[in-house]
Amino acid sequence: MTMAAGALPEALAQTLLVRFGERFQSGSAIRAQHGSTASWIATQPPDAVIFPENTAEVSETVSLCGEAGVPVIAFGAGSSLEGQLNAPRGGVSVDLSRMDRIVAVNTEDMDCVVQPGVTRERLNEYLRDTGLFFPLDPGANATLGGMAATRASGTTAVLYGTMKDAVLSVEAVMPDGRVIRTGHRARKSAAGYDLTRLLVGSEGTLGIITELTVRLRGIPEAVSAARCSFATIENACNAVIGGLQFGLSFARIELLDAMTVKAVNRYSGQDLPETPLLLAEFHGSPDSVAEQSRRFGELAGDFGATALDWTVDPEERTRLWRARHDVFWAVLGLRPGAKGISTDVCVPISRLAECIAAATGRAESLGLLAPIAGHIGDGNFHNLILLDPQDPGELAAAKSYVGWLNELALSMEGTCTGEHGVGQGKRAYMEREMGQALDVMAAIKAALDPKNIMNPGKILPERFDGQR
Amino acid sequence: MTMAAGALPEALAQTLLVRFGERFQSGSAIRAQHGSTASWIATQPPDAVIFPENTAEVSETVSLCGEAGVPVIAFGAGSSLEGQLNAPRGGVSVDLSRMDRIVAVNTEDMDCVVQPGVTRERLNEYLRDTGLFFPLDPGANATLGGMAATRASGTTAVLYGTMKDAVLSVEAVMPDGRVIRTGHRARKSAAGYDLTRLLVGSEGTLGIITELTVRLRGIPEAVSAARCSFATIENACNAVIGGLQFGLSFARIELLDAMTVKAVNRYSGQDLPETPLLLAEFHGSPDSVAEQSRRFGELAGDFGATALDWTVDPEERTRLWRARHDVFWAVLGLRPGAKGISTDVCVPISRLAECIAAATGRAESLGLLAPIAGHIGDGNFHNLILLDPQDPGELAAAKSYVGWLNELALSMEGTCTGEHGVGQGKRAYMEREMGQALDVMAAIKAALDPKNIMNPGKILPERFDGQR
Repeated sequence: MTMAAGALPEALAQTLLVRFGERFQSGSAIRAQHGSTASWIATQPPDAVIFPENTAEVSETVSLCGEAGVPVIAFGAGSSLEGQLNAPRGGVSVDLSRMDRIVAVNTEDMDCVVQPGVTRERLNEYLRDTGLFFPLDPGANATLGGMAATRASGTTAVLYGTMKDAVLSVEAVMPDGRVIRTGHRARKSAAGYDLTRLLVGSEGTLGIITELTVRLRGIPEAVSAARCSFATIENACNAVIGGLQFGLSFARIELLDAMTVKAVNRYSGQDLPETPLLLAEFHGSPDSVAEQSRRFGELAGDFGATALDWTVDPEERTRLWRARHDVFWAVLGLRPGAKGISTDVCVPISRLAECIAAATGRAESLGLLAPIAGHIGDGNFHNLILLDPQDPGELAAAKSYVGWLNELALSMEGTCTGEHGVGQGKRAYMEREMGQALDVMAAIKAALDPKNIMNPGKILPERFDGQR
Repeated sequence: MTMAAGALPEALAQTLLVRFGERFQSGSAIRAQHGSTASWIATQPPDAVIFPENTAEVSETVSLCGEAGVPVIAFGAGSSLEGQLNAPRGGVSVDLSRMDRIVAVNTEDMDCVVQPGVTRERLNEYLRDTGLFFPLDPGANATLGGMAATRASGTTAVLYGTMKDAVLSVEAVMPDGRVIRTGHRARKSAAGYDLTRLLVGSEGTLGIITELTVRLRGIPEAVSAARCSFATIENACNAVIGGLQFGLSFARIELLDAMTVKAVNRYSGQDLPETPLLLAEFHGSPDSVAEQSRRFGELAGDFGATALDWTVDPEERTRLWRARHDVFWAVLGLRPGAKGISTDVCVPISRLAECIAAATGRAESLGLLAPIAGHIGDGNFHNLILLDPQDPGELAAAKSYVGWLNELALSMEGTCTGEHGVGQGKRAYMEREMGQALDVMAAIKAALDPKNIMNPGKILPERFDGQR
């Protein structure tokens, strides 16, 4: 039933071509672009790409591919990091970028209905005059559909949650081509199994999301930002733990380790103390954000913070937060030409300092440059491992590090992935993390997708591949 | 495979008796107590009740019942409202009240691990000295396991979310007796299918929750309460919509309609204006709760609110909120001897005023006494229909009303159940609400529970009963 990569069955290719015309593409450049390209995982291009313009076309494609036993792989902005878009068994990439309509904005209900190809930046531009915004910020200008499929989150999850919290309901094309709607626009519902949350984070392996209803938030009246330095990661973590317990509503609370701060200083000529740095942001009324910044400053002071600076001025805020915005390019600048590979563990915050300390030691002992930036309020941090992927020794060291770190996170009651998802890259760790729950996941996958056509070879470990 | 009610297979009964001794009970009183008793749905008692003390015993029971093809029905505090505990095909009620250990409280991580029989009041008593609390309040002193199983929420969901948001992960016994853990203690995770959210709200039809890890919150430094009256429901709704858009963080925002206020006045000698009443609560720092109450008052004033009163004093707060606490008994007092039947629709808040106005008109025209109290910030409200269930005419009118109301909510992009769940009572409405998504739910149920032993006859409409 599976296909060798690079060749669609002739009849299927012909049918799709007739049906989609120029919106069916099989040139090698476009195919390569539609494999996973944003990580160290080798690109495995699909056999062809189609560009549907509505749900019926997605359904038709899935049905046709299903009849032929050919994989279908949903594609948004191409920014996923764990090989989610690769086509290890070939198949058709369903590029949803033309399904980018903002269907409805319901300002009184503070929600909106969008097609999956809408990017978060475009949505926020569109919303600007409504006084509302979509608060999740994973860094990349991802599509809403892709963010839902990978259960994305980012810097603001500490206040606004992840895509599991932002999505009220979805419309999806299931593996048999059937179109379902998992719910409507009620703010909460107790009506049966939570198919919304089942599809969010399923990485296109159970269905293709063709429409989403998402919660919006009021653009805060005021935003304050704060920045301070600590002697140790442990002190920084304790200041955040104290703030959370005290009820500070961090809208963002980010940690940079000393190596990342050094990179930022070098990149943009700043002179931040080259020790762990915290950046905080608060959203609310002018009085409340000022109060929260002040209280955070006091708390940080109790843990020996220095260089404390805070502001409610928008331009000043951009300046204070510049270090965070520069991280990616600044860190890459530490080793020009290197590839940056991101880890993604997430642990209970009480274990975070210990986890980061052990991680830093381990990376050093392996000779890896692996500076850290983290969504500290969630216990989620990323090493950006700077790697020459052509060097087998380095590659082996990096792989060993990632495996070790994922095990460490699990030993601390955490997860190998806080927000990037499993894809191909973390399949191997699912066994240890989920145990027998994996069999339940596999049973659901087999029940909904008996031909295994929906993004095969992702999430579930290899031992389940043979079951279908 | 199914059993006539009232008779376990002799061999199974014998095995369970030997295994559980006095913790296996089959007297008629205890059986009757373990059917659904809190609604207008007739009680259908299980054949026997067992009282397991640990996960292994739950697993053993499920395995034994599974081999015999006998249903198992998880039981917590017995407070569910839609027939979730009934045993239409007989079977064994698994009473989890002895599994009531608080396993761990992780104050730095603001989470705790509990067995399913822990009630929310006991948990909060236990937590009192930690500065943390479990914020969900569904009214009844339900068990955490039961609240998770029905995706409960209540007055504080507008700020703290529902059980889908509060539960970080669960341990569950699956229909084959296997014990799984759906995750660990990380604050967020993108590791595969969200089995936590699949089990939350599944009403014991997919597995029995034997341990839960739940998020806690910091006990707010200050709490303010506000109360005001409006000429119309529409004005009350508009004040709340305005507050939400403005970014007010209601911790609770409750609406009582004029008939409910009248009942409260009569019950406790208050002299509230007998028009729609809003009760608000804010959690935060002393400054912020005072500011939010003041701003809410201004906004309410814009919509013609009268009798505005607010306070940060705990005793005053209790007095202000007394109307809400008295609702259930006050409303029952309108018709002594009547049974109170609760509706549970939830609609987008922009449709709420229209929905309530139509509902009130319909109830009147049917001659029903059906006062309303609602979690207005979520768009969720309850009629408490005061009914003589022995009167066939009244019963028919009430059933007609409930069916009509559920349809109305769906026509407004809402749901027939915001927080009470489906059970037996709302199975008939699932077809219209979920459409083809029901087939997906049924496929999951069939894959995980092929013998249909886990709480059969709930959630999925009758047409799926025959599939197994």
